Amino acid sequence: MALVAESFDAVDLIVAKRERRALATAEIDWLVDAYTRGVVADEQMSAWAMAVLLNGMDRREIRDLTLAMIASGERMSFEGLPRPTVDKHSTGGVGDKITLPLAPLVASFGVAVPQLSGRGLGHTGGTLDKLESIPGWRADVSPTAMRRQLAEIGAVICAAGGDLAPADKRLYALRDTTGTVEAIPLIASSIMSKKIAEGTSALVLDVKFGSGAFMRRRGDAEELARTMVDLGTDAGVTTVALLTDMEVPLGLAVGNAVEVAESVEVLAGGGPADVRALTVALAREMLALAGRPDADPVAALDDGRAMDVWRRMIAAQGGDPDAPLPEARERVVVTADSDGVLAEQDAKGVGVAAWRLGAGRARQGDPVQAGAGVLLHVKRGDTVRAGQPIATLLTDDADRIPRAEAMLREAHRIAPAGTPVEERPIVAGRIAA
Amino acid sequence: MALVAESFDAVDLIVAKRERRALATAEIDWLVDAYTRGVVADEQMSAWAMAVLLNGMDRREIRDLTLAMIASGERMSFEGLPRPTVDKHSTGGVGDKITLPLAPLVASFGVAVPQLSGRGLGHTGGTLDKLESIPGWRADVSPTAMRRQLAEIGAVICAAGGDLAPADKRLYALRDTTGTVEAIPLIASSIMSKKIAEGTSALVLDVKFGSGAFMRRRGDAEELARTMVDLGTDAGVTTVALLTDMEVPLGLAVGNAVEVAESVEVLAGGGPADVRALTVALAREMLALAGRPDADPVAALDDGRAMDVWRRMIAAQGGDPDAPLPEARERVVVTADSDGVLAEQDAKGVGVAAWRLGAGRARQGDPVQAGAGVLLHVKRGDTVRAGQPIATLLTDDADRIPRAEAMLREAHRIAPAGTPVEERPIVAGRIAA
Repeated sequence: MALVAESFDAVDLIVAKRERRALATAEIDWLVDAYTRGVVADEQMSAWAMAVLLNGMDRREIRDLTLAMIASGERMSFEGLPRPTVDKHSTGGVGDKITLPLAPLVASFGVAVPQLSGRGLGHTGGTLDKLESIPGWRADVSPTAMRRQLAEIGAVICAAGGDLAPADKRLYALRDTTGTVEAIPLIASSIMSKKIAEGTSALVLDVKFGSGAFMRRRGDAEELARTMVDLGTDAGVTTVALLTDMEVPLGLAVGNAVEVAESVEVLAGGGPADVRALTVALAREMLALAGRPDADPVAALDDGRAMDVWRRMIAAQGGDPDAPLPEARERVVVTADSDGVLAEQDAKGVGVAAWRLGAGRARQGDPVQAGAGVLLHVKRGDTVRAGQPIATLLTDDADRIPRAEAMLREAHRIAPAGTPVEERPIVAGRIAA
Repeated sequence: MALVAESFDAVDLIVAKRERRALATAEIDWLVDAYTRGVVADEQMSAWAMAVLLNGMDRREIRDLTLAMIASGERMSFEGLPRPTVDKHSTGGVGDKITLPLAPLVASFGVAVPQLSGRGLGHTGGTLDKLESIPGWRADVSPTAMRRQLAEIGAVICAAGGDLAPADKRLYALRDTTGTVEAIPLIASSIMSKKIAEGTSALVLDVKFGSGAFMRRRGDAEELARTMVDLGTDAGVTTVALLTDMEVPLGLAVGNAVEVAESVEVLAGGGPADVRALTVALAREMLALAGRPDADPVAALDDGRAMDVWRRMIAAQGGDPDAPLPEARERVVVTADSDGVLAEQDAKGVGVAAWRLGAGRARQGDPVQAGAGVLLHVKRGDTVRAGQPIATLLTDDADRIPRAEAMLREAHRIAPAGTPVEERPIVAGRIAA
């Protein structure tokens, strides 16, 4: 808990933000601490959050808010590890399994990569849900075991403990029900408070934009990325952000076990070009921050070094890297209904289809199906023929198929052959301090 | 209760207002009904209220909100009364006792004036608190007794029942603790929902601006007045607003019994010029709306007709119009500390001094002192001499005096003799449909 000496009136602080005044450090400290203690009520905090959403906060205020959220809970530290540490965070997207190949790839160069991850909600999947499709694999790792795994293997992907930035946890749940999620100062401080509390010394952010991303517009993603890079810099964490495209799904697999399988393809030196390219781009940034700008991540994918770390990382958490992955009971192939070129492959639509098939959950705590999801057989820009398979739907419940198929079809648009389709690079920009 | 057929999602409606979209009538109906039923939570409604405060509502939305609040409770009706009815509402100020002489004055011309009033909170007094200083007088009047009193005497000032616009009551309490009081659409719909639910056919608004008023700036008061006049017009209630000055206290008496005494002076044809002028100006507007544009309120004050109605109105509610009013146990005279001209007499400061002496309450339900308050002996613009009494402080508790005296002195500023002091007319503007 923070030690907060001064006391303020919640209404005064709401009115200040409503009238575009910057709050003082002591005011922000009090607000976060008082909210955590229940002295500031939910209906006060939500009105304040709406004022922040509409009127903004300056760089110093956002830093103060982030530090106050960190101070509401415990902090971890990786000091004394025999390796440099570097962390990665993605704002999330459809088919975003990048953490799975990326953490062992970077660790294969002697760098420690602690990845505290979450479960999915809605149309974007969760890294832990994906890994839990591996027989025996456990997300819960004690702080001691985590440290040992980082020292010995270098990569750990596990559940975050409950004591990091509890004020953020409470505020995030409130924002979710009060129409105040999309406030950049609050998104940035929410992400960065957890990352800074985790004790990493360097951080690479994958900030996505487009239909399947949290931020649909590139300009918003850029503003969020800039805010988080500033925040990291101000808190002493070297931070770099890549702006990446999420207009179409990442790779060809969207689900849980199917995304693990695609990650293993990348670790074996193959896999879809966009997944491999983004994995390598993020690895280069992380390795540079860890003092290894010379490292060659492409070689480590191609020669099996990254795969070796993956196998050890999975085994260290009880998983069997050789066990067959679960398969869905029902498989339905969706075919193209005309000749032409695939002009649209909407990431959000594909994500919702996978979610409807059982790969995701509607409410926290719901189970997910390990085998459910969507396998894409074509990508945006490909030429297609009527009757050609464009996707396979996977689920354990046949009755989930009709609504998912409708959504999947809606997400795909075939234009007459020859229609030009703009190529979008996977990495669209880079933001550093 | 409203009959609301469609159902919506609270977050969608918050986001719509956040993004400056107008809500549809059915959406507003649902929101108010769902909030009244507890389906929409306080933290959702406060976020919505902040979005309204910062982004506004259009005329149709404000009308819909007002009608939805009315639909949340009961409606009264004065149909079938042998007199035309006309109502008055003031946004409140320091020394604002105008309802007391005004209701019997207008009623003396055969018009029915139903005044459902409230108790005070903070530095502005409440009409019922003032009248309760009259021995025997009761604020609670049944609907049947109210109707009989209106038919026979024409004037009734009493407590509002609990069933008018309950959604407004709940929303107002929420706004009070969440920094969302100052939203003109919400202020206007709060006032007008109660007035329209009361069933009057015509309404005169006294919208004050200045230090002692809810709206400090004239522009804000004008916008509020215009919004309420539009609302009344749209709801079929002929509505006129006067914009009046509240930079200095109204009259010379601020408190409870002392304001009753000053009102009786006005009813006897005397009293301070500003109180008499505003009473007459509001009476002319009310009489015109009641179809009596020819009536002469000045004559009715001077010849005792208004006083006769006052005596009958007080007696009908158990009060003794001849009983001596309560007096405070302690009286302290405050004198001028220099020669000069009284350049400032800050309404809010005088109001807070009276409140500190015990005339007002800090929390709902607290008692007030009938005899407490401030008697002013000079008005802004008067020439004063060092040692001349400028005010008398009245209270039952001597220990309340030092802080009240400090506040009263702070509210008065004496400038060198000859300093010009701008004259401010009591009625500064008029707004009609």
